[in-house]
Amino acid sequence: MRAIQLLQPSKLVFGSGSWELFVEDTLQAAPKKVYLLIAEPLTKALKPGIDRLKASGIRLRLSVYEAGEPTFGLYQQYLREVKSFQPQVIVGIGGGSVLDLAKILAAMQDSTSELSEFIGINLLESRKTALICIPTTAGTGSEVSPNAILLDEETMEKKGVISPYLVPDATYIDPDLTLGLPAKITAETGIDALSHCIEAYTNKFSHPLIDDYALRGISLIGQNLLRAYTDGSDIEARTAVALGSMYGGLCLGPVNTAAVHALSYPLGGKYHVPHGLANAVLLPEVMAYNLSSDVSKHEQIALAIGAKKGNSPEETAKNGLEKIKEMVRLCNIPQDLSHLGVEKEDVTELATMAMRVSRLLKNNPKEMTLEDAEQIYYSLF
Amino acid sequence: MRAIQLLQPSKLVFGSGSWELFVEDTLQAAPKKVYLLIAEPLTKALKPGIDRLKASGIRLRLSVYEAGEPTFGLYQQYLREVKSFQPQVIVGIGGGSVLDLAKILAAMQDSTSELSEFIGINLLESRKTALICIPTTAGTGSEVSPNAILLDEETMEKKGVISPYLVPDATYIDPDLTLGLPAKITAETGIDALSHCIEAYTNKFSHPLIDDYALRGISLIGQNLLRAYTDGSDIEARTAVALGSMYGGLCLGPVNTAAVHALSYPLGGKYHVPHGLANAVLLPEVMAYNLSSDVSKHEQIALAIGAKKGNSPEETAKNGLEKIKEMVRLCNIPQDLSHLGVEKEDVTELATMAMRVSRLLKNNPKEMTLEDAEQIYYSLF
Repeated sequence: MRAIQLLQPSKLVFGSGSWELFVEDTLQAAPKKVYLLIAEPLTKALKPGIDRLKASGIRLRLSVYEAGEPTFGLYQQYLREVKSFQPQVIVGIGGGSVLDLAKILAAMQDSTSELSEFIGINLLESRKTALICIPTTAGTGSEVSPNAILLDEETMEKKGVISPYLVPDATYIDPDLTLGLPAKITAETGIDALSHCIEAYTNKFSHPLIDDYALRGISLIGQNLLRAYTDGSDIEARTAVALGSMYGGLCLGPVNTAAVHALSYPLGGKYHVPHGLANAVLLPEVMAYNLSSDVSKHEQIALAIGAKKGNSPEETAKNGLEKIKEMVRLCNIPQDLSHLGVEKEDVTELATMAMRVSRLLKNNPKEMTLEDAEQIYYSLF
Repeated sequence: MRAIQLLQPSKLVFGSGSWELFVEDTLQAAPKKVYLLIAEPLTKALKPGIDRLKASGIRLRLSVYEAGEPTFGLYQQYLREVKSFQPQVIVGIGGGSVLDLAKILAAMQDSTSELSEFIGINLLESRKTALICIPTTAGTGSEVSPNAILLDEETMEKKGVISPYLVPDATYIDPDLTLGLPAKITAETGIDALSHCIEAYTNKFSHPLIDDYALRGISLIGQNLLRAYTDGSDIEARTAVALGSMYGGLCLGPVNTAAVHALSYPLGGKYHVPHGLANAVLLPEVMAYNLSSDVSKHEQIALAIGAKKGNSPEETAKNGLEKIKEMVRLCNIPQDLSHLGVEKEDVTELATMAMRVSRLLKNNPKEMTLEDAEQIYYSLF
């Protein structure tokens, strides 16, 4: 088995009550100044804990993040705030957008360089500010990954900073915090997490050690997402999806995603389609494209999500694909790009933008040309 | 699912060639002074890598650790060396004894307190020196755990320092480094790792998330240890056991071990029986004692190691126990304490010492009295 490097938070807290453990741990560590970037819908639910922190004498700066994709402009705005406050700890509490932004802010607080210099892989040189991530969606895996994605408004492209310094020092994954998540976002983010696992498992650079995480994630999400979508208060299903999402996140550093994500970025960039939704729409179609590359692995995916065993590995693999398609449909995710406001005449432009995401396309188990990408987009009209 | 905290190295490298990646990473990080505590049999195999580090201008201090249990006296001796050298990084390369010692040295380099003040759980206050562990046996899991055990020669008791600060910053697990391990040590350390997984899985404080790691470790070790014992050059089996051992180590922090380890410490302390061997001798007997506490979990263990399915969960569980007994026997590990030099008249003293290891005994799924412990020791004559 070739060597593989896992970068992960040195402290990982998972389960009901993790949020309270974060408050306890912070009270005990007693840093002087803590900057909290917090997703708007959560501010109320977390108030008691935040009030306890305030009462302890720790100086807190609360910054509320409203919904939407994080942009370079937003980053500049928050960075000014962070630099003027000079916190020892930055805590991101929210979905992937909030966490990605918090991760970049922590890395950039002590830098005099421009963010644009760090777009790419392994370009950051350090991070002095402690970084804690508390996800409130179950999907992006950002809470354990070295990735952060922002939208460059000038080019309308999603750009990634990927660095060991973006792996949080600690993460607290509390499935209770996902209980209030609307069904629609539950589904979209959950299928995003599923796509992390599937794209790592079927990856050109897949690795047996990561395959374990990926297959575990596929099974947890595949068997529980519909439950969490149907009944948002089903904490057992919420917990399983949150755990699966964590495993998906652990796949992102060492193996990462492939064509689903590469083709999804232009939809986010140009049409502001939320990241999870874009991946959810693309996943079945890209899986169908990749299936022949490794029938056995697609068979394993099918079995992990509880699809019916067929008369051949290929039949089982196809049953799995149908089951995923059905799940996407039952989650009321459109399989039609026009529903997302995408226009057919933009397909070539979208495919051209997707081709530029070579850091992910190179991972796809089957080579993908511009024409292939166009074909996939077209099939979704 | 109740919250659980995992503490783990933020960098975990696994697989063939990890040792070379350690050399590369160290060359790149270029610390000024690195202290290497290295197990005696390895010095030759690792020479090319160490020579490259030396040639780079990094100041290296190599300290060779000869076989044996690490004692308080040895610790004092190495600490003097470390304090006079003042390294930025301490690297332990060897079996559990070497890693445990390296972990404690890294934590104590900047302390003016006595080690005795830190015996117990969560008493260390910090660690400034970077700590890297490179295991060359597959068993203790020390490379990923917050535990370190030393022998107090005065009381002949094994004493543990358990602290988040003892979790290494990075670990490089290279199964190639275990290729030269003698069959006897392969078996003893492998069954130690198996016991970590089994004691975590059947633990009174077991946790679903850790159960996953434990069961994966049980399966990897249970199905591959005999192969690694029979043919030490079987890299596939070596790799599986090393991975299982890592999962066993990841169980130690959040859940930890139970009666096998509690009863094993006095054998190490009083009779200097190597840790792995002591656990290997005790494991089947303690499992037999615990089996009734949770038949279903013991059934899962049986299935994970490939034991024959019986007509009832209990029968399957017992098949599993027999399979482990057989494995221990085929590994030529004695099931008779007199073979280890233990005398029958010492049993009460041994059981009394075991009763003092309450931090582990409290984890046992079935309460264990002094008489129970005596009975278990007696059954091994």
